[in-house]
Amino acid sequence: MEYVISDRVQTLKPSAIREIFKYAADPTVVSLSAGNPAPEAFPTEAIAEISAKILAERPVDVLQYSVTEGYPPLRRAVWDYMQTKYNVGNENDDILITSGAQQVMDLFTKTVCNEGDTVICEAPSFIGSLNSFRSYNCRLCGIPMDDQGMRPDLLEKALQTEKNVRFIYIIANFQNPSGITTSFERRKAVYELAKKYNVMIVEDNPYGELRISGENVPCIKSLDTEGLVVYAGSFSKVLSPGMRIGYAIAPKPVLQKMIVCKQGEDVHTNTWAQMVAHEFMTNYDFEGHLASLREIYKKKANFCMDLLDKYLVPAGISYSRIEGGLFIWCKLPDNAKISMTEFCKQAVLNKVCVVPGNAFLTDETEQCSSFRINFSTPTDEQLEKGIRILGKLASEVL
Amino acid sequence: MEYVISDRVQTLKPSAIREIFKYAADPTVVSLSAGNPAPEAFPTEAIAEISAKILAERPVDVLQYSVTEGYPPLRRAVWDYMQTKYNVGNENDDILITSGAQQVMDLFTKTVCNEGDTVICEAPSFIGSLNSFRSYNCRLCGIPMDDQGMRPDLLEKALQTEKNVRFIYIIANFQNPSGITTSFERRKAVYELAKKYNVMIVEDNPYGELRISGENVPCIKSLDTEGLVVYAGSFSKVLSPGMRIGYAIAPKPVLQKMIVCKQGEDVHTNTWAQMVAHEFMTNYDFEGHLASLREIYKKKANFCMDLLDKYLVPAGISYSRIEGGLFIWCKLPDNAKISMTEFCKQAVLNKVCVVPGNAFLTDETEQCSSFRINFSTPTDEQLEKGIRILGKLASEVL
Repeated sequence: MEYVISDRVQTLKPSAIREIFKYAADPTVVSLSAGNPAPEAFPTEAIAEISAKILAERPVDVLQYSVTEGYPPLRRAVWDYMQTKYNVGNENDDILITSGAQQVMDLFTKTVCNEGDTVICEAPSFIGSLNSFRSYNCRLCGIPMDDQGMRPDLLEKALQTEKNVRFIYIIANFQNPSGITTSFERRKAVYELAKKYNVMIVEDNPYGELRISGENVPCIKSLDTEGLVVYAGSFSKVLSPGMRIGYAIAPKPVLQKMIVCKQGEDVHTNTWAQMVAHEFMTNYDFEGHLASLREIYKKKANFCMDLLDKYLVPAGISYSRIEGGLFIWCKLPDNAKISMTEFCKQAVLNKVCVVPGNAFLTDETEQCSSFRINFSTPTDEQLEKGIRILGKLASEVL
Repeated sequence: MEYVISDRVQTLKPSAIREIFKYAADPTVVSLSAGNPAPEAFPTEAIAEISAKILAERPVDVLQYSVTEGYPPLRRAVWDYMQTKYNVGNENDDILITSGAQQVMDLFTKTVCNEGDTVICEAPSFIGSLNSFRSYNCRLCGIPMDDQGMRPDLLEKALQTEKNVRFIYIIANFQNPSGITTSFERRKAVYELAKKYNVMIVEDNPYGELRISGENVPCIKSLDTEGLVVYAGSFSKVLSPGMRIGYAIAPKPVLQKMIVCKQGEDVHTNTWAQMVAHEFMTNYDFEGHLASLREIYKKKANFCMDLLDKYLVPAGISYSRIEGGLFIWCKLPDNAKISMTEFCKQAVLNKVCVVPGNAFLTDETEQCSSFRINFSTPTDEQLEKGIRILGKLASEVL
């Protein structure tokens, strides 16, 4: 039979990172291309203990159908946590538990975008979200960043010229892939522009708790007096990504529609994971756990940046120091005689795998002189080996 | 701010059943309106045992990111099971693990339907799937059924006259809500018509293992030489709905696109649930468990049908005996002086809750003289009480 594929899905491709993962699956290749939490960051004993308890005491609650909005005690716990700690969520908002923060992007795009509508994002940006927007046939418009975040002059120009802009997508903390943290002034500027042009903002904050230096910057959602920000949170980096739990804190009229969409998409999120997350947040030392994560990532990030200083900087590759998150963005010199695609290909042939920057652009065929390194997944030995190889390659080809 | 809601989501409403659940939440109301598996049907001890084992032995595998296609051992186990037992899946097909079978409807509709395309379904049909189709702005075309299933004459007429029909949605075993099992002749007729008019079929089979009498009827997918059937399977009724695991066995070109959509929707399905399901299927007595489920539901269904014979049939309400599943479809007499909406409203006021048949129609405002009873969720006492009340009401108002 000749299959008919919808217009929206016709041009959709698997993420370029997944293609790179094929090389990374070769055990002789050092992968600096993933985005997994460090395995030692999982509170495995606590999760096993909680799991045993809930399956012994309340098995039917774990195994039976539940409500689409999410497990009520988890909704309350997350709401209280985000209110108290970050001033996120007010009387105009409500909370929905999702199957990972990825689902927030999907449900929100489905709810507010018609095909052909425009989504503004940072350039570069997280490929998973971009693909979610693409899957509803949205036009993507990337706004270049400086070290403070999205450039407001270019953002305003886009808001003036692009048609049917529905929302601005922003990862304000330790952005994936650039590592940039948007400054407070810039967050306010983005919020004011959204207000002025009557568009919404999706603030995706998967890495916010993983700050390793500097001071916390208030969330854009904490400025949201007008009800125009959807906050996307995640347990993937603070508890476990395999559990697939995220949440949206969003204005009620929009959230209500997202709930109806979720009902038709997966009915509700896995209950076991929601109950485990609730117990862990409320009856365990959640803050202590977050502190230990920050220690793990601080050590790994600093180790990685020391290696970059030692092996890559002398060869002409620059990078920006990060204050948190899982990624470092490295840039080839302007006079490099090799394309990024070719550099990454040579790297793989030399048994190390990084992600070429163009994978994170709204148009993947554009040129980009940067690549992304992840330091949370590899061991220290793998990091050292991988970055040493990259340095040797750089000194040969640049 | 004034919120813009997409055309596709604008008119989407929460399922009528969910509205009825509000009444059902009143503990003094007997709910015959749900669709939950019987709580005693969960293999709670086995699940607790498996969960403890995998969290002790392979915690990182349980908690880390996994692949979108699904946990490979579970994919293999389900594939082998469906191949061996039901001849479902051939060399043109592959398998995707989803977050419940509901997600199969979502991903497939997203993959093959443009807005305005037509989906043909049985009339009545499962409201969750209908809402999923509606959420992509599909036109729904319901085909009336007789006791053999969808009427092929009306199906062919629809295939001739409806524009851009993308697929036929069918629950061939113990249909929700009608309880009808499509005969083998009828399955062949539906398949031949799909082939003739070059449209696909989604065969949704959540209740297939819950046969309490009669002989198994081959799946439509087992006839699929042309690669036009997507088979949707579920663990919700044979293991646990709270775990949210389903699967699609579908022609590769379509499944590949569904996988890309799933990546943008929720990355992958909860890993714990997939690993528990795999262990339960392969290292426990899965067939024995299914046999015990059939015993539970046989007892409950027969008990329920005896009550219907005792209380409703004498009052003029008829029903069709079922061979499996969780639902019984009851019909008011043709000369009833009360509308179905009014009958269900009166029932709630008398503290028993059933679902009016029009909730399952493509146009909910159409008249329908039937209502749906569920016998798996209530206890025997609740069933007896609820049906006795309905009988009393019927004798008063009909």
